[in-house]
Amino acid sequence: MEIKVMKSILDANENVADEIRKMMQEKKIKLFNIIGSPGAGKTTVLETLIQKLKNKFRIGIIEGDCATDRDAQRLKKFDIPIVLINTESGCYLPSISIKNALGELDLDSLDIVFIENVGNLVCPAHFDVGENSKIAVASVTEGDDKPAKYPLLFSEAEIVILNKMDF
Amino acid sequence: MEIKVMKSILDANENVADEIRKMMQEKKIKLFNIIGSPGAGKTTVLETLIQKLKNKFRIGIIEGDCATDRDAQRLKKFDIPIVLINTESGCYLPSISIKNALGELDLDSLDIVFIENVGNLVCPAHFDVGENSKIAVASVTEGDDKPAKYPLLFSEAEIVILNKMDF
Repeated sequence: MEIKVMKSILDANENVADEIRKMMQEKKIKLFNIIGSPGAGKTTVLETLIQKLKNKFRIGIIEGDCATDRDAQRLKKFDIPIVLINTESGCYLPSISIKNALGELDLDSLDIVFIENVGNLVCPAHFDVGENSKIAVASVTEGDDKPAKYPLLFSEAEIVILNKMDF
Repeated sequence: MEIKVMKSILDANENVADEIRKMMQEKKIKLFNIIGSPGAGKTTVLETLIQKLKNKFRIGIIEGDCATDRDAQRLKKFDIPIVLINTESGCYLPSISIKNALGELDLDSLDIVFIENVGNLVCPAHFDVGENSKIAVASVTEGDDKPAKYPLLFSEAEIVILNKMDF
């Protein structure tokens, strides 16, 4: 019975993800879903991406966090639209939350939306949110066995960013 | 309806956790639940704990991992009983998995059981497994904002180990 319920949650999630995918295609917006462990450096990657892209593209941000608005506060300096989702203790952003957050953005004035998912290498990888690509962020300090130990994200992500490296 | 199901899952988890707690008291076993992000260093902490305690106490291990037996392999050198739980892509160890794993150990010949939970700062903190204490492991490379951003684990844990420090 639990498995049945889980399946219906996944189906419902997928249906809304399909709606989002269609809407993003219509609006010609690229949607990226950034996923990684707590402290992998997702917000720092986002800061760098915004800095490099903001003169060429109109960018919007959906910030997911269990608690606090710290990440959203860090991105305020760029003066771009940000929607914060506090999941309380939810371990991922479901597609319905993304749909609601997108409803808070003026989509006609955006080219790219970056989602920063909850810091978690497991759950967010299971939930399609209609993104063009998942971006996995992993820091070298987590150890080189993470793709083997958390295979779903690393097989689903089109882009993997290896962070906190010495040069 | 989903909330009702979630509540029944949490209730069912709690009932089994209470069974485990009672069984551990009867057997005079201390049960510790080690929780932290992927790559925080949970297995390394466990290696150190086993090394320091193995001459005074009889130790058993329950290893939780999404995939691979890498952590269990790392602990084989101590020649102590280890039960591995592969959650496939499950994001925490529910109490029923712990109960089943305890059934694989000879509890009359143990003083301490350490559980290494799935690498995840969010979900495992929600699920009581009948432990005496939760031990949170956090690495300094994750950043100092983690207790604020993932408050449940850090408020639930009786012990917090700050790992990967320079001295």
